[in-house]
Amino acid sequence: MIFLDHDALDEIALGATVLGTGGGGDPTLGKLMAQQAVAQHGPVPLLALDETPDDGWIIPTAMMGAPTVLVEKIPSGSEVLDAFRMLERRLQCRAVATVSAEAGGVNSMIPIVVAASLGIPLVDADGMGRAFPELQMVTPTLHGVAATPMVIADEKGNQVLLETRDNFWTERLARTATIQMGCSACIALYAMQGVVAKKAMIPGTISLAREIGHTLKTYREQKRDPIEALTMLLQGRRLCEGKITDVRRRTERGFARGEVDIIGAGRDAGVHCKIAFQNENLVCWRDGRPEATVPDLITIVDEQTGLPITTEALKYGLRIVVLGIPCHPQWRTPEGLALVGPRYFGYEIDYAPLEKTMNGER
Amino acid sequence: MIFLDHDALDEIALGATVLGTGGGGDPTLGKLMAQQAVAQHGPVPLLALDETPDDGWIIPTAMMGAPTVLVEKIPSGSEVLDAFRMLERRLQCRAVATVSAEAGGVNSMIPIVVAASLGIPLVDADGMGRAFPELQMVTPTLHGVAATPMVIADEKGNQVLLETRDNFWTERLARTATIQMGCSACIALYAMQGVVAKKAMIPGTISLAREIGHTLKTYREQKRDPIEALTMLLQGRRLCEGKITDVRRRTERGFARGEVDIIGAGRDAGVHCKIAFQNENLVCWRDGRPEATVPDLITIVDEQTGLPITTEALKYGLRIVVLGIPCHPQWRTPEGLALVGPRYFGYEIDYAPLEKTMNGER
Repeated sequence: MIFLDHDALDEIALGATVLGTGGGGDPTLGKLMAQQAVAQHGPVPLLALDETPDDGWIIPTAMMGAPTVLVEKIPSGSEVLDAFRMLERRLQCRAVATVSAEAGGVNSMIPIVVAASLGIPLVDADGMGRAFPELQMVTPTLHGVAATPMVIADEKGNQVLLETRDNFWTERLARTATIQMGCSACIALYAMQGVVAKKAMIPGTISLAREIGHTLKTYREQKRDPIEALTMLLQGRRLCEGKITDVRRRTERGFARGEVDIIGAGRDAGVHCKIAFQNENLVCWRDGRPEATVPDLITIVDEQTGLPITTEALKYGLRIVVLGIPCHPQWRTPEGLALVGPRYFGYEIDYAPLEKTMNGER
Repeated sequence: MIFLDHDALDEIALGATVLGTGGGGDPTLGKLMAQQAVAQHGPVPLLALDETPDDGWIIPTAMMGAPTVLVEKIPSGSEVLDAFRMLERRLQCRAVATVSAEAGGVNSMIPIVVAASLGIPLVDADGMGRAFPELQMVTPTLHGVAATPMVIADEKGNQVLLETRDNFWTERLARTATIQMGCSACIALYAMQGVVAKKAMIPGTISLAREIGHTLKTYREQKRDPIEALTMLLQGRRLCEGKITDVRRRTERGFARGEVDIIGAGRDAGVHCKIAFQNENLVCWRDGRPEATVPDLITIVDEQTGLPITTEALKYGLRIVVLGIPCHPQWRTPEGLALVGPRYFGYEIDYAPLEKTMNGER
């Protein structure tokens, strides 16, 4: 059994932020919360997805809301436990483990806070293989798993338990509750037994995040090119390199939305790129041509350090590289694309796998 | 024990609409639902408040939302039972009775649907002695009774259980959920045991509503002046009589808001009256001077028939009489006025009891 300690959390938070494609929250805050919980309660056991007991309940935990708000409205740390326990009461069960709903800076860490505080393991998996802005956008939805019963809890002591018609209604009702709570809240949802989780969740996400973080750290220390290493590790592509010339952002219907403009440099001199985001990066255009779209991952990293930059940290003048990374194959099915493809987000673009567009095959 | 049958519901719905001061929903729909439930399951026993068992749970039930929406978005009838049962499960109890949260056309009837369907009595009481637009505006709030746990259910099969910091947060979170559900939903809340209800609820509201309805009906049949009889019965005053010349209405943040203009006739010839409403009538001005305000009751009735007119039915040309009726003494305390006085609703008016303003003592 692997145990996640203080240093492991450094690497996981960093790696999950790469997978978070700009969303999933700034890693600093989540990491500090998780490291404090681990310092207080001891390292957290990491349980492989295929080792979870078939009849044991696994309850994913996360933060929900606008990442721009999250960095200023700091959770108390106890509301996520409130959410977890209220869901346990509703299900009349004791969960054997928690797990990440999505890979992302904060949302890789929140379940570790829960696991450490309650003395239960973290499952080495997540529900997206990346981050997405809406609740229903998880592989469990593709497998018919209901998001509800779901609990939303805030730091003021409010708790909302939802039982909904479907996962879209869950998103709708949970989003407005989160907005009322101040645009960020803690959630427990998609409770499932091990036998279901083994099919519905994406295995190995925490280990992968750790490997990404470890690679970035090692290459930087050795003064080797971390971006090259990252690209190799994730079988990704460089979509663009250059300087951010404009960021338009708005906190809208509970989301951080906006666009970022990039003027190319180096081998991309003269090129103009644009990226649209809704918490996460959704579409990357290169000279007006869509080069990558959801569900493939679009991650912006610092040109020198390779460190990922979340959407709330984007600003004028940053010198960056945009990476495209293929998504999990589950998302490339017709059902997956209906749930998280570019058209769902309002873009009149047919999805084409990143590998094809890069070879000019769109 | 009194049993409420088909004819009793006619009278109660009518009388409760007078007490509803323009809000609480159009009586027709609620009455049809309650009469159908009584036809199917038999008359509903009416239990006096002081006869409720001290340790028995009483769960108030109601509809929530904009009355303008309610008349077009018809409830299925089962969602209020869903809400009631989910609250019972949360409390791990079997309720001994239900009760009206507010007097009003729909909200006097919804608990009868519940009582008939589940074979339990209705308590002869309500939480306002009238209708008010927000959830926390009940006498139980004055007695420290929590609105939560509360359940909101819609006809689509969505259910939301709230556990909140206080009754204002309950209103806030319940209102946004109701808006998402389409501006009208069914609720179960303010669950309390008999010993608490005896102090916190207003006794006799259903009997009073029935007496009002019976009086209106009898006087009309006997071609005697029903408005005079109503005024006597409720110790009310005529604030104004005349013709509606304008209605401005908007569905705003889940409420039916607006103003109605009245040009005086008969003994009020030459007078101009204005009434502002938020679901319920809030303030009545006579030639610019506030003549009556919440928490006193302002009810608009038809000039000929004395039948109450709800805010969603106000329209140009109606010939009406505006009645002012003193509210329950609990609302005239400093705590009562802080909760439901004119200043809470944004009017810079000091509350003065109706009896005083009518005598020129404001």
